Amino acid sequence: MNIEMIEAAAARLAGHARRTPLLSSPFLDEIAGRRVLVKPECLQLTGSFKFRGAWSAISALDPAVRARGVIAFSSGNHAQGVALAAKMHGAPSVIIMPSDAPQLKLANTRAFGAEVVTYDRANEDRDEIGARLSAERGLTLIKPFDEPQVIAGQGTAGLEIAEDLLEMGITEAEVLVCCGGGGLTSGVALACADRAPGLRVRPVEPEGFDDVTRSLAAGEILRNASMSGGICDAIVTPQPGNLTFPIMSEHCGPGLVVSDEEALQAMAQAFLRLKVVAEPGGAVALAAALTRTDSLQGDTVVAMISGGNVDPAMFARALATL
Amino acid sequence: MNIEMIEAAAARLAGHARRTPLLSSPFLDEIAGRRVLVKPECLQLTGSFKFRGAWSAISALDPAVRARGVIAFSSGNHAQGVALAAKMHGAPSVIIMPSDAPQLKLANTRAFGAEVVTYDRANEDRDEIGARLSAERGLTLIKPFDEPQVIAGQGTAGLEIAEDLLEMGITEAEVLVCCGGGGLTSGVALACADRAPGLRVRPVEPEGFDDVTRSLAAGEILRNASMSGGICDAIVTPQPGNLTFPIMSEHCGPGLVVSDEEALQAMAQAFLRLKVVAEPGGAVALAAALTRTDSLQGDTVVAMISGGNVDPAMFARALATL
Repeated sequence: MNIEMIEAAAARLAGHARRTPLLSSPFLDEIAGRRVLVKPECLQLTGSFKFRGAWSAISALDPAVRARGVIAFSSGNHAQGVALAAKMHGAPSVIIMPSDAPQLKLANTRAFGAEVVTYDRANEDRDEIGARLSAERGLTLIKPFDEPQVIAGQGTAGLEIAEDLLEMGITEAEVLVCCGGGGLTSGVALACADRAPGLRVRPVEPEGFDDVTRSLAAGEILRNASMSGGICDAIVTPQPGNLTFPIMSEHCGPGLVVSDEEALQAMAQAFLRLKVVAEPGGAVALAAALTRTDSLQGDTVVAMISGGNVDPAMFARALATL
Repeated sequence: MNIEMIEAAAARLAGHARRTPLLSSPFLDEIAGRRVLVKPECLQLTGSFKFRGAWSAISALDPAVRARGVIAFSSGNHAQGVALAAKMHGAPSVIIMPSDAPQLKLANTRAFGAEVVTYDRANEDRDEIGARLSAERGLTLIKPFDEPQVIAGQGTAGLEIAEDLLEMGITEAEVLVCCGGGGLTSGVALACADRAPGLRVRPVEPEGFDDVTRSLAAGEILRNASMSGGICDAIVTPQPGNLTFPIMSEHCGPGLVVSDEEALQAMAQAFLRLKVVAEPGGAVALAAALTRTDSLQGDTVVAMISGGNVDPAMFARALATL
């Protein structure tokens, strides 16, 4: 992984992915006691940053390979990103999802152009199904985070942050990133390290699923004890990636951890003050910016909202915190 | 009014107002049967397009006049736009609001830096209070729409729409604009007429408050029968402006009218598919784009979301339509 890969991904994304702005509100500055700038990747195509990595990976494929199609395992934002990026390339996509995934996610992924293959979690092995389909059709697997071209694609958001901050004359800030497997965090960290080394990128995770924070503190990859039970499902992964962890170790500051309740409150602030829709996992960085004020340094904090794919009932829970 | 005034306003707004993007979703295209592009002015500073006009008017004042301060009559988006634009210029602002205005609006307007002067609707005359304060302090009145520099400021959104469409190779489209007094609609129409005459700007209003639509059809200014009763309060005014009506007559296509229920449904689609927060009045143009498909021409429709200042209870009503 290097900055040239991120720059090349940015060139491939230009005119296809959305360049998201930086948002702000004096009310959020007041809460945080410093300037808060928010990068709303919920406004990205498919409602999350995942489109960047999917487009980067699919656009980097040899055209003949791409024409055979791509495959991904996901029931969430990665699935939608891969489905739409493949469709926009005119390439078929297969998404393997558990048969008990929410109907809305199944329907959305199909609507973005994917063939959805479901499996029975109790009796079938998704890897076996994926391997069989890939062999039969010559499909290329698009991994969700531990893949260089995916990391490069997510890093393009970091280039935009650095560019916008430098244009505002800001050279030092903490940059808080919602973190699951670390694809977005490591990509943004690489981009910032090159473009604006005074920016410190820090992963933010939900309580109980703080594998990256603990791994960074320990200096080795640690796993989450559980994969279920919280509301920040979009950013829950078993452990940091083999590619992403060394990058985060070299470039990132200490992780931050927030509660589900704090994530819901941050969703409510994003609604009230920024007029954007955040999902729980997508709001953890803003939650940290607003509540972990003693753990942050400097006059400016940047918080990424990584996604906005939330159902109305969960959003109503967030509004009820107001 | 002319295009040079809008261009000059754009130069004054540069680096101060937010340049909002165009959003889209294949799901909205599917509903509308054509390409739908959304200009989310809810992401503008203070949560509505009103900041543009306020900044334009205040920045155009002679510095010595501006230093004495500005005054506005508003309990809504115009108040917040004037308050923040004045504060950013280091100028005092006075906002006259009824004493029974919602606490949240009073608090927000104060938080944006204004001195809020309340009056008793039953026993006091707001114009008399305003005139007295203006005379005492030398304040300049910033009118909400029937003022050339305000229209010029709103028109900067039209310059951005035209520029973005031309960059996408789109030269013909209907441009639907949420319409109250016509400041935004007339400004956008002037900008589009100059930059991309193949764009047809059309005002969209809520049922029962369709004074502009009826006035355009009649060729003369007609009034609304009532000023109360709907949920689209942000865009309800007694009648089209004396400056805005001739501009709309010359440059705009026929108006469109939607129901409150359709506005709520459009808010829900903006939540679900675009991840932005629209207020009822701010969603009427999107509602028309999604439902008045037989009344629209061409392959592309642009819908402005004019604002996102909605309370959680009303937003919950919108989500309940899903």
